[in-house]
Amino acid sequence: MNKFILVAGLSLVFMWALAAASGLHAQQALFGGPEVVSPEIRADGAVTFRLSAPQAAKVEVTGDFLPPQKAKTPSGASDGPGVAALVKNAKGVWEYTTPAPLEPELYSYSFLVDGVKVTDPANVYMIRDVASVTSVFIIGGGAGDARADLYKVNAVPHGSVTRRWYESPALGKARRITVYTPPGYEAGADALPVLYLLHGAGGDEEAWVSLGRTAQILDNLIAQGKAKPMIVVMPNGNADQEAAPGESSLGFEERPSMMRARMMDGAYEASFPDIVRFVEGSYRVRKDKAGRAICGLSMGGFHSMQISKEHPDLFDYVGLFSAAVMPREGGASPVYQDLDAKLKAQFDKKPKLYWIAIGKTDFLYQANVDFRKKLDAGKFPYTYRETDGGHIWRNWRIYLSEFAPMLFR
Amino acid sequence: MNKFILVAGLSLVFMWALAAASGLHAQQALFGGPEVVSPEIRADGAVTFRLSAPQAAKVEVTGDFLPPQKAKTPSGASDGPGVAALVKNAKGVWEYTTPAPLEPELYSYSFLVDGVKVTDPANVYMIRDVASVTSVFIIGGGAGDARADLYKVNAVPHGSVTRRWYESPALGKARRITVYTPPGYEAGADALPVLYLLHGAGGDEEAWVSLGRTAQILDNLIAQGKAKPMIVVMPNGNADQEAAPGESSLGFEERPSMMRARMMDGAYEASFPDIVRFVEGSYRVRKDKAGRAICGLSMGGFHSMQISKEHPDLFDYVGLFSAAVMPREGGASPVYQDLDAKLKAQFDKKPKLYWIAIGKTDFLYQANVDFRKKLDAGKFPYTYRETDGGHIWRNWRIYLSEFAPMLFR
Repeated sequence: MNKFILVAGLSLVFMWALAAASGLHAQQALFGGPEVVSPEIRADGAVTFRLSAPQAAKVEVTGDFLPPQKAKTPSGASDGPGVAALVKNAKGVWEYTTPAPLEPELYSYSFLVDGVKVTDPANVYMIRDVASVTSVFIIGGGAGDARADLYKVNAVPHGSVTRRWYESPALGKARRITVYTPPGYEAGADALPVLYLLHGAGGDEEAWVSLGRTAQILDNLIAQGKAKPMIVVMPNGNADQEAAPGESSLGFEERPSMMRARMMDGAYEASFPDIVRFVEGSYRVRKDKAGRAICGLSMGGFHSMQISKEHPDLFDYVGLFSAAVMPREGGASPVYQDLDAKLKAQFDKKPKLYWIAIGKTDFLYQANVDFRKKLDAGKFPYTYRETDGGHIWRNWRIYLSEFAPMLFR
Repeated sequence: MNKFILVAGLSLVFMWALAAASGLHAQQALFGGPEVVSPEIRADGAVTFRLSAPQAAKVEVTGDFLPPQKAKTPSGASDGPGVAALVKNAKGVWEYTTPAPLEPELYSYSFLVDGVKVTDPANVYMIRDVASVTSVFIIGGGAGDARADLYKVNAVPHGSVTRRWYESPALGKARRITVYTPPGYEAGADALPVLYLLHGAGGDEEAWVSLGRTAQILDNLIAQGKAKPMIVVMPNGNADQEAAPGESSLGFEERPSMMRARMMDGAYEASFPDIVRFVEGSYRVRKDKAGRAICGLSMGGFHSMQISKEHPDLFDYVGLFSAAVMPREGGASPVYQDLDAKLKAQFDKKPKLYWIAIGKTDFLYQANVDFRKKLDAGKFPYTYRETDGGHIWRNWRIYLSEFAPMLFR
């Protein structure tokens, strides 16, 4: 009976004692959560970070919730992420509380324990961005550009997220793809429109559903009646890659990297019809131009521009988010040739929406100025959205939450 | 053009310089992977761990690849996980290499940086187990009980994994569920059999697809012709919970815990027909007893025992993995009453397989001895499998990889 009580969850201490009595070290993996609560989000939106580290000499926190500060980089002094010192109490627990409430947002942070950048051991919520994993938290609410309530799982109907594989004859391999279907899709009868949502350099088919919060944003916008129910297809945009790191036969020994063997060589754009064919052969979707949208961030914005002009009959909605939209006519791929003529052919067919968004301090800002000049010169109509900030996920979540409601109207 | 070169991936240093020149701290989130390779799996299966920590006074590694050692616990001295010291070189990089090759297995480990237990910043592969996140790696191969090749993503056809929601009228809420469909399911026509695969205390609908490696094990067994193509349904077995931590409206502020409000109170077992109804209404599956299996680990083994005897016509295959299989007739739920009579009714209907597996040093070993005595007394036939080890994922992966091939023959 004693053992049952333990398993029935009446006593964690008792459970520990039993495991200890059994002499089995590995059973400890079942026990022992963190000793402190961190991060603690206070009622006013201030946040307290804690780390139990009696033997550490210095503990700091760094993250995008802190104002930037001067930092050394390989190219000299520059603004770097802010760093704040935690203070140790008598029990060896280090603590830092933000001096003011934080704005609504999804934030990433790390601890620096005697100089080593690590995730917060008390916080199981982490997200990988390219080759780094950081701890995350969300401050809800949503004033101005910030709309973090959209990034939370709320008590609304939820769509499904499927990781599956499609065949790409053009790339000669099976490839992993992430598909969001909206609430009610499985039991419904209507053909739904499709948004193709493309990641940036270093990303993969996991990027938009993790840091991008695609499923939450769509669930919430659809529940609020602000976006039409749609299927969102998130492919892997790295032509050399089968799947996200850890999900291909390269296994856990693959080291994620922003730099890839076949980046922006035209192969991915040329293979894109394999993805459309797969989606339209596998899902109950519309197959008309007005039922298809494509958008992407950074390299994915470049891909969206290239793919949509290569196939001027496919997409009525195009979104370039902080797009790496520089011409690439020097590139060997035929995809990249004759940009002006192809853009003219695309705009002659009058896409319903060509949307360009970028942050004022994005390092691709000038490239987008140049691209808009080209569109202006051709009298090609587009909608322009400029935000604060740079080449960051905060902006891409905002752009998705603004772009999706404009689709399929 | 310069900026394009950067985006095209020709120069990471150049990219950094540009971002630095732009003065935008947040853009650094794009850059800066780890400075060292860790873990490095050597050709012979030895493993080197590395951490760059020039300012740390002590760095150790702990994990299930190390032999256990005496440790202090709340209940006195006991075996604890092994700890090995890393040694610092002149550049401030700490290193430890295992003295011998490791057996094929999926291993979990953490660093101790001046006493603080953290994940390896150079390794993006991490898995959450209840309230702890650890770094992981896999040593491939497979001799004896170890069959770690099954846990790797190999170059074989891959099934799909979907996270979706079902309505549970019995529990009064929508709940998240994970479903594996085998390669070819979407394009096929045959009704497939279904394995219901249940997690243990502290787990949720993510447990079996993360540490359990269900998708990899099934992909590989099916590719080898050792398991029949089947759908694997992984529900959430915590009656009080909508979804895994971070996936419900409790958001990132939910602290995962092994102890839950409504553990083993009979409500989940009573609600199980909601799940079967959902699956059989949503997937192209068999609806006969010979086309249904149920198994689970620890609390999930208890659930499998209870659910299968409550519904003696539902499941022809039952698997109890390290099951918390103690009788609970003192419990208030009618589900738990009249165990002997219900077992008799179940075995009168001659299930094709009743499989019990446990490790020799599992703290539930005696409970399983007692349960087998009960089955023996009733002359209820079952198959018994005893392994080394205790209440650990290593065993549960082995049990799944042995149980799945016996199903639906």
